[in-house]
Amino acid sequence: MVELDLRFAEGAVSESEWRQLQPFVSDIHRRLHAGDVPGADFLGWLHLPSETLRDGIEPLLTAATAIQEQADALVVVGIGGSYLGARAALEWCLPEYFNQLPRAVRGGPEVYFAGNHLSAPALADLLRVLAGKRVCINVISKSGTTTEPAVAFRVLRAWLEEQVGPEEARRRIYVTTDRVRGALRRFAEAEGLKTFVIPDDVGGRYSVLTPVGLLPLAAAGVPVAELLEGARAAEEALATDRLDDNPAYRYAAVRNALHRKGKALEVLAFYEPALRSFAEWWKQLFGESEGKDHKGLFPASVAYTTDLHSLGQFIQEGARNLFETVITLDHPGESVSLPAVAGVEDGLAYLAGRDLSWINDQARIATQLAHADGGVPNLRIRVADRSARSLGELFYFFELACAVSGLLLGVNPFDQPGVEAYKTNMFALLGKPGYESAQAALRARLEEGVR
Amino acid sequence: MVELDLRFAEGAVSESEWRQLQPFVSDIHRRLHAGDVPGADFLGWLHLPSETLRDGIEPLLTAATAIQEQADALVVVGIGGSYLGARAALEWCLPEYFNQLPRAVRGGPEVYFAGNHLSAPALADLLRVLAGKRVCINVISKSGTTTEPAVAFRVLRAWLEEQVGPEEARRRIYVTTDRVRGALRRFAEAEGLKTFVIPDDVGGRYSVLTPVGLLPLAAAGVPVAELLEGARAAEEALATDRLDDNPAYRYAAVRNALHRKGKALEVLAFYEPALRSFAEWWKQLFGESEGKDHKGLFPASVAYTTDLHSLGQFIQEGARNLFETVITLDHPGESVSLPAVAGVEDGLAYLAGRDLSWINDQARIATQLAHADGGVPNLRIRVADRSARSLGELFYFFELACAVSGLLLGVNPFDQPGVEAYKTNMFALLGKPGYESAQAALRARLEEGVR
Repeated sequence: MVELDLRFAEGAVSESEWRQLQPFVSDIHRRLHAGDVPGADFLGWLHLPSETLRDGIEPLLTAATAIQEQADALVVVGIGGSYLGARAALEWCLPEYFNQLPRAVRGGPEVYFAGNHLSAPALADLLRVLAGKRVCINVISKSGTTTEPAVAFRVLRAWLEEQVGPEEARRRIYVTTDRVRGALRRFAEAEGLKTFVIPDDVGGRYSVLTPVGLLPLAAAGVPVAELLEGARAAEEALATDRLDDNPAYRYAAVRNALHRKGKALEVLAFYEPALRSFAEWWKQLFGESEGKDHKGLFPASVAYTTDLHSLGQFIQEGARNLFETVITLDHPGESVSLPAVAGVEDGLAYLAGRDLSWINDQARIATQLAHADGGVPNLRIRVADRSARSLGELFYFFELACAVSGLLLGVNPFDQPGVEAYKTNMFALLGKPGYESAQAALRARLEEGVR
Repeated sequence: MVELDLRFAEGAVSESEWRQLQPFVSDIHRRLHAGDVPGADFLGWLHLPSETLRDGIEPLLTAATAIQEQADALVVVGIGGSYLGARAALEWCLPEYFNQLPRAVRGGPEVYFAGNHLSAPALADLLRVLAGKRVCINVISKSGTTTEPAVAFRVLRAWLEEQVGPEEARRRIYVTTDRVRGALRRFAEAEGLKTFVIPDDVGGRYSVLTPVGLLPLAAAGVPVAELLEGARAAEEALATDRLDDNPAYRYAAVRNALHRKGKALEVLAFYEPALRSFAEWWKQLFGESEGKDHKGLFPASVAYTTDLHSLGQFIQEGARNLFETVITLDHPGESVSLPAVAGVEDGLAYLAGRDLSWINDQARIATQLAHADGGVPNLRIRVADRSARSLGELFYFFELACAVSGLLLGVNPFDQPGVEAYKTNMFALLGKPGYESAQAALRARLEEGVR
């Protein structure tokens, strides 16, 4: 199970500083499980793993098998929570260069992501790489009207129909959307498309363990039952309110204590490139949950040891307004030994025969020490390996920690009111019907200057 | 030429606040060009574009052509400044999924990066994707003893020799290193390898326009003469000390003014996914140049519109300790029109026939307005397009701005003393000869607890 190691933070935050939060954590725990917190309509994630395993995932696995048979390439159309979780899990569980491996090695289809930007060149690049391939689309949107996925889906569906005709295209499109409402639900019913449901009580950034994440992951060959089983194990292990027994709550309490002492940023660090997109998932989870009411720790991430040669200087000696959270894997995976070579004075002779993972872990310990000594407390979150099961544990760990952390901060961790501001402006500038007067006002401001 | 638009920052920082820095900027400009600043041994970048074009790049282009003929895949081995610039320029100039395009479309070989981490699984994944391909290696290291590239080079050279024998391997290895010193220089001479020089007076993060960046870029098919020409044009255009005429200095002054008013983070934003690695280059440049003496703006980045559905909430409504710098392209590239479709209520009917790049740009204006209104001043840096020439301008623009910014902040922008701390610990933990007593001390600390 996920563990939390605070040794490299002890110099900066004493045990009593986070222990004094126990009563607040206990209160939040009770209210969270009683549905008595702000955003209580969005607590479906709390028992999602056990409930999903109880209800079974056969329809999802059947669809995933169908996609594997139908497709050389699966395009996942979604943004935000309908994008980051699946991408994080794919990269965590599968090899790098996955799409370039021979199909026999890969098992599932190639996987691409679309609908998470508005870039014409990037979409054109995608269409180019899809040329000549049998393509399935999984479009994921609660409403069906979110601009980015709606735009990409229009383009991709037109492209697919051109390739295979409207009838076959219908068999190649899988829709993940609201149970009853919304444009995408109506479209799917009218066209007779295969659909999966985004539960009403699970927000986007908490949705990776719903069909939003599970369907593309299963199609790609990720063992989603193990992913869910890991999350279920975490759900069970983290059901206590005691800081001593609950590392997710301890993490929430320590980061809150550090924030109270003036830390403005949390930097998520990891030592395997395969965790890059997991860090993006984490940034959405914490940034969108806590960044409101002019509050919140800014969530950033670094890929080590890569970024020790980039942001490492800042973290070691720059402004002392940050702390780090380091994810480590007990068993990173495949071994590669450093070969012995003659006649090369590269300073590595004493390491010949050593496994890179061991060297990497010494770099990690060295860095945790150096950063702690330099005034950057760092927490270590320890996970077993890159299995789907371990990832399931970690997803649940952070989801729970984030909820409690947001509630300790005094915000509603389940809403995102701030994302409307740019959307309103955007619809006005795009000339959306109904936004005419807003458009005139914005155009005038842009012409006059902005202030 | 690169332009700076301050309209969306005017509410937060008045003209007089940055104009009062003119005398300091003028003084720094004079001393920079006279070589009278801290770190004056590393000012080679200042006239690098014009000097390189004057001296010619034929040897480099010849080697690039040889690599194109020899290789299906080029592996670039380097870390930090020997990695980020080439990667940034590749992704800026070339299509996404570059390595998956047919060779005839791509022109150059596939390009992979190694030696920028210590992950065994990631290196194993690379060897898997290289299987069956004709591979060249470009190993880039000033000393030849930096751990990550030295480790990867050992593994890759052993692999290459196994594939093609030691003699052919020698023809496939290109070395970019110090002119006379260091382990890699000695190795290259002993083995008779083709070499290119990292100038003594250009630090790693300023090295993209030396053979460090130019050789892999030329091999990949990037028009490096245009890249240099763009940088040379910027070198000329930005040779004045006047804030009114020098957008790089104006940028440095405005960010300094914002920092003085309490902003702790700068977030680099962009609307084309192809700029992701450029943002990583920028983060190293500013983070490593300014993050010292417990100072500096923490450099973060966001890919929009993707991250409007992630960190967007924080940026709109979270802690008000940040400002944004938005890179925009006047001509993003290829067009994709939104198709008209019947029977889909996706809320996009009014946009049918519109180009995505126009929609993307409305989202950008909408977001700049919304963030400024929400208390996040944002600067816009305007570039013509994704050509190598425009990128050359932007590289030089930021290099110059960063130097002046660091000097305004009162640090030596050209050193990186903080990167030694973890290295010393690491060598001790790895058991490097000469670090025995340090090792014993660290082991004792780790066993006792850390404090």
